[in-house]
Amino acid sequence: VHEINSVRTAFMFQRVAVLGVGLIGGSVAAALKKRGLAQEVVGYSPYDGEQALRLGLLDRLADHAQLAVEGADLVVVAVPPTEVAEVIVRAMPGMSHDAIVTDVSSVKAQVVPQIADAMGARFDRYVSSHPIAGAEHSGPASANADLFENKKVVLNLPANADALERITRMWQALGAQVCHMSVEQHDATYAAVSHLPHMVAFALCLGLSGRQDAADLLANGGAGLRDTSRVGGSSAALWADILLSNRQALGACSAEFTQAWDAIVQAIESDDKARLIDLLDRAAAWRRAMK
Amino acid sequence: VHEINSVRTAFMFQRVAVLGVGLIGGSVAAALKKRGLAQEVVGYSPYDGEQALRLGLLDRLADHAQLAVEGADLVVVAVPPTEVAEVIVRAMPGMSHDAIVTDVSSVKAQVVPQIADAMGARFDRYVSSHPIAGAEHSGPASANADLFENKKVVLNLPANADALERITRMWQALGAQVCHMSVEQHDATYAAVSHLPHMVAFALCLGLSGRQDAADLLANGGAGLRDTSRVGGSSAALWADILLSNRQALGACSAEFTQAWDAIVQAIESDDKARLIDLLDRAAAWRRAMK
Repeated sequence: VHEINSVRTAFMFQRVAVLGVGLIGGSVAAALKKRGLAQEVVGYSPYDGEQALRLGLLDRLADHAQLAVEGADLVVVAVPPTEVAEVIVRAMPGMSHDAIVTDVSSVKAQVVPQIADAMGARFDRYVSSHPIAGAEHSGPASANADLFENKKVVLNLPANADALERITRMWQALGAQVCHMSVEQHDATYAAVSHLPHMVAFALCLGLSGRQDAADLLANGGAGLRDTSRVGGSSAALWADILLSNRQALGACSAEFTQAWDAIVQAIESDDKARLIDLLDRAAAWRRAMK
Repeated sequence: VHEINSVRTAFMFQRVAVLGVGLIGGSVAAALKKRGLAQEVVGYSPYDGEQALRLGLLDRLADHAQLAVEGADLVVVAVPPTEVAEVIVRAMPGMSHDAIVTDVSSVKAQVVPQIADAMGARFDRYVSSHPIAGAEHSGPASANADLFENKKVVLNLPANADALERITRMWQALGAQVCHMSVEQHDATYAAVSHLPHMVAFALCLGLSGRQDAADLLANGGAGLRDTSRVGGSSAALWADILLSNRQALGACSAEFTQAWDAIVQAIESDDKARLIDLLDRAAAWRRAMK
């Protein structure tokens, strides 16, 4: 077991506890280690902690959330949205009073009030983070120390100035660009740009998976199928959790997609080429404006 | 004007006429030139012929389809599905009796009988090709000589053995893997693996493009949005043509997608996590089997 040196060091954090060590948590741990930003990175996960330790993502593995956070000046909670508050509740008894807490959840409106309840008076030490760095692969084996380079991280205020400053510097030190959004704007935006595309890709794969020639299709697709369907291979458990946690904001997006889909289907069925070109042109003009 | 040398050369083709010089036609022309497979590549396009010539994709540009095919032993027709037969009709008076003709259309059931009508007795010199090498970019500027390397090309029988052999060797010489399918199987397969994903991506972009925050969304998306929407930036005119030309096979695919989409939306709206995980799991299992 490492001992924290009493001599002041250049480390940004003395001890970081990472609760949940999958793609995102494992990458945070590995990135902090690689860049020498933490003297010690302690992990905890009942599912894949051993694997993360074996892969070298962590300095040490703890048996309980409460033990993992002991002496940590930063706690990173990297579990699915509905589990964040529960993990914090379990960790709280072991946590230093001045420990900063952040999560990486892609849904905020449902999660942040639960965290406020869990943290009570210490809630001003919480900073809400959402690194835009998901992938269709999950688990510690997919983690990598450079995952956050040139990725966006959205922070949701408020937090106290010190906590916000330290979390901002951490993500920047991992190579990310930090921006700020309100919780409401975040959830509406990521319903549209992340959760909806996942729903669409899952639906594409689900529809094709039910066909008699489903296996043959896998071999015949080109880059169009590969890209359009890619995130449809994501973790079902994680994404069910995300989609349900943000279902209020998703409702409007789903309805907009359904309307757009129906319009295109209708133009094809009625062989209305002028109408179809108009619809596809509007879609393509928007997409081509993406950098 | 080049003269074909009377001395036998190592060229696979003496003169190739490429009618339509966009992404696919321009790439065929450039690839034949780069690999020294044709003594001369002559292009024709009323839209972007000059650009293709300037970009060095062609040896020579002809003013009419009929002039382009004079003396050609291979004619490659690379225009949208509904224009293929019309271009062949216009080229026929200039074509040698033993010229081989191929197209690159991604829809066959509607197009091949029109080509049969256009070519009459010479239809046995036609080989139906579909290179799986489309992209969201179109036009000569997107063409490249290596586009077909490691791409699949689907040939649809029948044709005479000599024509089939020469077209097979041509695509293989451009680096592609050649496979065979019936016209019916081709159209059903590519409705599912190409045309449907394009519809879905266009619908995703169309729905998002109509939002008040449409411009902001462009800046906030990650890799998930980028990949799921990519082919939604494709040419509206080309894709309206493709989707309408294959609307019979697309009908079944569209209905399967609508059913899958509705099931996912319904599971989210009713907050049914077990059902949602089951649906997403079936989708993800199929996608993960893709190589």
